[in-house]
Amino acid sequence: MAYSPSITLGAMGIEETLESLRKFVAERDWQQFHTPENLAKSVSIEAAELLECFQWQSTPDNKAVADELADVLTYCLLLADKLGLDPLEIVAEKLEETKAKYPVEKARGSSVKYDQL
Amino acid sequence: MAYSPSITLGAMGIEETLESLRKFVAERDWQQFHTPENLAKSVSIEAAELLECFQWQSTPDNKAVADELADVLTYCLLLADKLGLDPLEIVAEKLEETKAKYPVEKARGSSVKYDQL
Amino acid sequence: MAYSPSITLGAMGIEETLESLRKFVAERDWQQFHTPENLAKSVSIEAAELLECFQWQSTPDNKAVADELADVLTYCLLLADKLGLDPLEIVAEKLEETKAKYPVEKARGSSVKYDQL
Amino acid sequence: MAYSPSITLGAMGIEETLESLRKFVAERDWQQFHTPENLAKSVSIEAAELLECFQWQSTPDNKAVADELADVLTYCLLLADKLGLDPLEIVAEKLEETKAKYPVEKARGSSVKYDQL
Repeated sequence: MAYSPSITLGAMGIEETLESLRKFVAERDWQQFHTPENLAKSVSIEAAELLECFQWQSTPDNKAVADELADVLTYCLLLADKLGLDPLEIVAEKLEETKAKYPVEKARGSSVKYDQL
Repeated sequence: MAYSPSITLGAMGIEETLESLRKFVAERDWQQFHTPENLAKSVSIEAAELLECFQWQSTPDNKAVADELADVLTYCLLLADKLGLDPLEIVAEKLEETKAKYPVEKARGSSVKYDQL
Repeated sequence: MAYSPSITLGAMGIEETLESLRKFVAERDWQQFHTPENLAKSVSIEAAELLECFQWQSTPDNKAVADELADVLTYCLLLADKLGLDPLEIVAEKLEETKAKYPVEKARGSSVKYDQL
Repeated sequence: MAYSPSITLGAMGIEETLESLRKFVAERDWQQFHTPENLAKSVSIEAAELLECFQWQSTPDNKAVADELADVLTYCLLLADKLGLDPLEIVAEKLEETKAKYPVEKARGSSVKYDQL
């Protein structure tokens, strides 16, 4: 069964999301645990739980994937916020670097790494 | 040296970011490689590169962390988009579940798992 | 091309392997970096490099896989040794627990988790 | 409380361990799930469970660490065996390469990567 998110794509803004995460953490006095290093470990741990959905199969339940993906995203946003980074801005900046590494004419249809293109 | 992102927090919207990622992938004809499973593997791989910044130290260079965090976020956004999920909405939905698992009065100042609270 | 290890399977013993790793670390004065936590991070980091061999393909080069698998094993052995654990003994002990969780008659031919058998 | 393995270090040989794992898998008819790719994913997943012991603390319970480390080792051994690799031999071969990359006189007391030594 397909998983149908109930709201319109893009209805919530990134700043609103960050604010709700900050409030959640502050209310529980969890800033003390959220060192950059602990958050980086947490990103890896949750990424593996996402991968676990695909451990023995290629097409897992969409709701399970959404749940685990949400956890990875949450820790990514907390880490970005901790370091004073705008999460969408760093994605945009990295995308520009990646575009330069993988020019369309050389990279099209290929999955090899840029240093072997 | 601190890493100073050059733009105002929140200046870029999530939909704009997703659109730029979609365009990047389409131009290179990479949709064929971006199965949900391959994207989930990629999230784990990039999460470990982020963790590598902290392998032997607790306070790595902020620019290196930003670069690797951007890669994790990028694959998370691509996976969400592939599955028709709004990345911010799934974070918000999961946050509601997590709030219920970790009530403020029980979880405050504690890092133990909800089933041991 | 297949990767052909040049020696007989089982020619080297686990104690000999551990001893060569201990010597390698001691000569470089690296014990100071090898806290259990740093070694655990290193296991995850190397595991992701192993996974990277399979990022966009199911059948990577065997030599590359052997190299990355060796790195994961190395850090696992260093961590076990650091904690005074016999690596083969903990595998054997865990196998007994896993056998009990997955009885042959219930688990045969199934990839579902023990709590759903 | 310290975790005390009950047997002498090195009492069990690697070939005996591999044989017990092969038998465990065959009895459950699980070879069908154990593709190299699935085993590589499993190594990453279990590595993250090991890391989870250290998520919010540097000195976790030794028994928990032993359990998770055993799982990582188990999948590493299964993957090596699947590919016809001697696990101790690939560790030894990789160690020779690493020794060459990190000469004692340059690497002593330093945690920087070989390409920055």
